[in-house]
Amino acid sequence: MKSPGSRKDRVVLDTSLFVNPDVRNDFGDSPTEAIKGFLKIAELIEGLEFYMPSSIFAELLNFVEQRRIPGSFLAVMNQRSPSKHELTCPAFLLYELIEDIRDRINKGLRIAEKAVRNAGKSDEREVIQGMRKSYREALREGIIDSKEDVDLILLAKELDALLVTADHGAIKWAEKLGIRWLLPNKFKDYLLSFIVDKEKQ
Amino acid sequence: MKSPGSRKDRVVLDTSLFVNPDVRNDFGDSPTEAIKGFLKIAELIEGLEFYMPSSIFAELLNFVEQRRIPGSFLAVMNQRSPSKHELTCPAFLLYELIEDIRDRINKGLRIAEKAVRNAGKSDEREVIQGMRKSYREALREGIIDSKEDVDLILLAKELDALLVTADHGAIKWAEKLGIRWLLPNKFKDYLLSFIVDKEKQ
Repeated sequence: MKSPGSRKDRVVLDTSLFVNPDVRNDFGDSPTEAIKGFLKIAELIEGLEFYMPSSIFAELLNFVEQRRIPGSFLAVMNQRSPSKHELTCPAFLLYELIEDIRDRINKGLRIAEKAVRNAGKSDEREVIQGMRKSYREALREGIIDSKEDVDLILLAKELDALLVTADHGAIKWAEKLGIRWLLPNKFKDYLLSFIVDKEKQ
Repeated sequence: MKSPGSRKDRVVLDTSLFVNPDVRNDFGDSPTEAIKGFLKIAELIEGLEFYMPSSIFAELLNFVEQRRIPGSFLAVMNQRSPSKHELTCPAFLLYELIEDIRDRINKGLRIAEKAVRNAGKSDEREVIQGMRKSYREALREGIIDSKEDVDLILLAKELDALLVTADHGAIKWAEKLGIRWLLPNKFKDYLLSFIVDKEKQ
């Protein structure tokens, strides 16, 4: 436990906490309710600061009834981007990323070739739908594939924060960069532990 | 021109200088002859040091008659890898790379879908061949897509060297990282200028 004078610990949040139904129900039945449920707990915690990259925050707003979000959410959930023009990443990660993408690109081509060979044999629409699914799985799952993902990872690194995400690509990079991470479905217990701790003091 | 006491300027070379027929002919009719032609000039130049990433050097050896390469090539052409566990790259490059790849992946899928739709209409083998070509162009041209490319770029950056390459992906990154670069077909003139300069002294 931190002493009262120590810096607050920081947490960087992904949207899945509020948007993904498997996790969100810990906090509320809809994204809007989940935010309100989170806020109720977060406001009781003095030892944590909450952050969300601006790009992720903007995504989240698409899922909520904005007029029903309490103003205090903006005070509790700090929005900011990582300092992308000052931060650096280790060069060996560049190698791993390029090699990973190269393998995936080759895999994507093999999936496409298979689909062309199947095109005569079955329904064209089904073949295309099946191919899309396999292609996306091969090329995008378990990899950082958007600037929002990069924002999450770099902000957590910059702030030396705990990253709360269910994204496999982001978790993989958190592991490479020495970033603490937690699955969203453990997050409510994590938060509550701060309140219990306080009551024990 | 550098004063005699100043550090020698450094040059990092890609294989294309010796392997690509459009360029190689400046130095010799085959990769082996091109190396010998290059050596003849390079040995007259005191003001330059030549480097090749070990991975690129290994590639080059596949193209040459190894027993006909003079031992002095190993003395003139320094082989080394960049310090990949010490070097860093600016984070904004990670964003650009991820966004670029994301666009290319989407483009690859559209190419594959088009091929499936054409599969019934024309010869399957032709459709697959055409798709392969378009797919590779869309996903791999103008992008750094191998660890050898990363080696080239990072070694040039680490050594503050001139990068001699015809690879569009490598040139694009050289531009982003402030690395001097030169097309291989200008390289012989570049080298000769050092000899002329010397004669004028």
